[in-house]
Amino acid sequence: MLERLREIISRECELHLAGPIVIGVSGGPDSLCLMDALSRLGHALIVAHFDHKLRPEAEADAREVQRIAENYGFPFELGEADVAAFAKLQALSLEEAGRTLRYRFMFELAEQSGAQAVAVAHTADDQVETVLMHFLRGAGLSGLRGMPLRALPNAWSRAIPLVRPLLSTWRAEVLAYCAEHGLEPVFDSTNQDQAFFRNRLRHELIPILETYNPAVRAGIWRMAQVLSADYAILEKAGDAVWEASVMAVGERFVAFNPAALQAEPSGLQRQIVRRAIALLRPGLRDIDFEATERALEFLSDPERPAQIDLIAGLRLVFEPAYAGPALAGPARIWLAAWEAELPPGEWPQVHQALPLPVPSMIALPGGWQLRAEEIQSIDTIRRQARENVDPFQAWVALDNLTASLEVRARRPGDRFQPLGMGGHALKISDFMINAKLPQRARRAWPLVCAGEAVVWVPGFRLGHPFRLAPDTRQAVHLRLRHVEP
Amino acid sequence: MLERLREIISRECELHLAGPIVIGVSGGPDSLCLMDALSRLGHALIVAHFDHKLRPEAEADAREVQRIAENYGFPFELGEADVAAFAKLQALSLEEAGRTLRYRFMFELAEQSGAQAVAVAHTADDQVETVLMHFLRGAGLSGLRGMPLRALPNAWSRAIPLVRPLLSTWRAEVLAYCAEHGLEPVFDSTNQDQAFFRNRLRHELIPILETYNPAVRAGIWRMAQVLSADYAILEKAGDAVWEASVMAVGERFVAFNPAALQAEPSGLQRQIVRRAIALLRPGLRDIDFEATERALEFLSDPERPAQIDLIAGLRLVFEPAYAGPALAGPARIWLAAWEAELPPGEWPQVHQALPLPVPSMIALPGGWQLRAEEIQSIDTIRRQARENVDPFQAWVALDNLTASLEVRARRPGDRFQPLGMGGHALKISDFMINAKLPQRARRAWPLVCAGEAVVWVPGFRLGHPFRLAPDTRQAVHLRLRHVEP
Repeated sequence: MLERLREIISRECELHLAGPIVIGVSGGPDSLCLMDALSRLGHALIVAHFDHKLRPEAEADAREVQRIAENYGFPFELGEADVAAFAKLQALSLEEAGRTLRYRFMFELAEQSGAQAVAVAHTADDQVETVLMHFLRGAGLSGLRGMPLRALPNAWSRAIPLVRPLLSTWRAEVLAYCAEHGLEPVFDSTNQDQAFFRNRLRHELIPILETYNPAVRAGIWRMAQVLSADYAILEKAGDAVWEASVMAVGERFVAFNPAALQAEPSGLQRQIVRRAIALLRPGLRDIDFEATERALEFLSDPERPAQIDLIAGLRLVFEPAYAGPALAGPARIWLAAWEAELPPGEWPQVHQALPLPVPSMIALPGGWQLRAEEIQSIDTIRRQARENVDPFQAWVALDNLTASLEVRARRPGDRFQPLGMGGHALKISDFMINAKLPQRARRAWPLVCAGEAVVWVPGFRLGHPFRLAPDTRQAVHLRLRHVEP
Repeated sequence: MLERLREIISRECELHLAGPIVIGVSGGPDSLCLMDALSRLGHALIVAHFDHKLRPEAEADAREVQRIAENYGFPFELGEADVAAFAKLQALSLEEAGRTLRYRFMFELAEQSGAQAVAVAHTADDQVETVLMHFLRGAGLSGLRGMPLRALPNAWSRAIPLVRPLLSTWRAEVLAYCAEHGLEPVFDSTNQDQAFFRNRLRHELIPILETYNPAVRAGIWRMAQVLSADYAILEKAGDAVWEASVMAVGERFVAFNPAALQAEPSGLQRQIVRRAIALLRPGLRDIDFEATERALEFLSDPERPAQIDLIAGLRLVFEPAYAGPALAGPARIWLAAWEAELPPGEWPQVHQALPLPVPSMIALPGGWQLRAEEIQSIDTIRRQARENVDPFQAWVALDNLTASLEVRARRPGDRFQPLGMGGHALKISDFMINAKLPQRARRAWPLVCAGEAVVWVPGFRLGHPFRLAPDTRQAVHLRLRHVEP
């Protein structure tokens, strides 16, 4: 067994003899066996024990593990936390809360001590139970493939791998090893497992399954191995799709190109969604099927709402293609934390009303500039104004103004009478919707106004009353431009 | 339910109203429900009933199904066979034998009647049971994805699809449908299923699993759906690998380029092996894991034997790269039926002894031609002979011949004294092994001999006693060439 482990540890777990390894030791047979084997194979260990504060004898257990570690000559580190309180706070199960705190402790320790890896003692039986749990949930490939021998990045670190050298060693072999090498477990981990559900699988369901196939455990274990190779291929296929369909990644958002993503087979769409969720919520253990399906439906549904709640405090936001005449941009679907502000678009925004004297030049956020120039002789620019195709400039008749010009965001009640629509007035919000201005851009889109009157919506239309008429005598040239900030 | 079925039938099963559909009707609720639904949706059916000759009441059941079919106005076709005898003959389980004969009957009927598809009435429950059976065996993705709504090619036909319109309808819905539409099942298929194992799953195991997760059936069903999409991606990834690593495909063999296949991730190697097995054994239902793993090991093992038994009367044969000086060829791994002759190589072969007078020209199989030309003046060709780099031509001294030349295959006891190896004689078989002549090519490789003496091994060496010596007075020019056949 030691020889087989040596092989697995160096080839599959990629551990070397140079740096220390943080090993999680509960004191049960699995972790004692792993500690002993790693020690015999010449590895330097840092023994991490975590007190969940859930059992009265936990403190005594910790002292016993410490004694054993010191007998090996390994440094001992004790972590502890009020798991029950944390579970309550985070609305997690006791098991999940304990797991989170325990791994956090081990990886912090690994980082502080420059360890090459964190090792845990999951066995082949644990693997089978894990796969079976996922199967009972109706999980996808990422669950059915079970736990990997080596995971990097993992939920806890992008730099320090999590390794499971005992994953192909059965619990019976572990117990035989303990007996052979005189290891005395601090407690019988097989019965004290905090996970009631897992215990039921182990003691009830698996024996029942063995009446259907006596080799069911070996079969499931092997299945996990095969599926894990299949999963690796799918992940590789997903890399290209990620490249092609993800438009932006931030700490709290990922932006997709919905058309690019929709062109892919559903299996790859699911994978990209799962990847994005895992990127924003690395600690999330189960990305449930319903969430992924909801995302796929949101992606393909032309009747989709503007946003939906997805999972774990994340939402999906749809922004249609921006079809404004000058600022065209593709549609986007954002996966983002509810509390996250999506990154500003490339569009012009104004956050307070600013007077716009003539002439003047006003700087707006994000490198936009609004310029107002007096026109000396109206007749010389009539033709130019008539033939203008740039919606970001306009020639405005000042004759009918009742107040001085300013640039500001829309206000409730603002109405607008777009040029060329027969003098019909509509709510500025309806105009913006019709113009397909992205929702986020609307609230602070710069409008050139005079008192109550909306004179010009840059990028879209001039107001009908402010067009150059044959009898116009006074006019101004307005231009909104993006310059490098 | 009818509306949902209409959608599935046209979109997923790709059935249209134009041509008839062969439907397998046992007389149980599932098949009656499907027949009724297809009929209501306007499809023309051919009702196929198969009598397994296993139950005393089978004949009466058949008559009852016929009566029902005729009530609908559908043609009725009865198939029958002695399933028990067939099972014994083919060493199959009763279930497997029945299945084989039943599907063969339905697809033959479909071909004869120009049907657009064969439809069977598997339900969502059947799907869950199938996936569960595969899970208990520790199957890979191709098993866990369950049965497809539409399969083409399938084990029975490359042209006529097998469709399963009820695959997303639960058995309870089927029973409700039967009750609602007054359909009276001929028998209660849920208890008379011939598959004892499946029945145990249905009545014992699934209810137990439901105590772990009340929605376990829906979960497994959904899992199959998701995995089936994943499988489709893997298959697509496999297409490119097949293209790159399969060198030849025949009715009873597939030849792989082992280096190309080995360069792929193990998941894809497995897939290619499975595909090749399925191609040669389309009726094979379960390609078991051990067989695939054995194939992968054979592929990667430098110490592999020349051939191994794989599965279902198929063997794997390794042929090393052919490193002969003129006929270089890559290594090959053949997957082939044991009884199949591998296709002839491109190499020259001779199947009977042929006299080789000088001059002469002898045609060998496969477009090879052996030419013997008398040399008029030896001195004029000495330099040419010395500088020759083509091992398929030789200048042979005739002075030492004790018998006339012939071309023939090797014989037991043949020995050879290769030129340039110090006059050392060795068994022709050892020479061939050293020369890395592919095993299959050795038996009939053409040798130019004179009585017992091997004069020339075309493609390799001249015999030492037959080289042009300073005192040679009589010589012949031999040349073996491949010409278009």
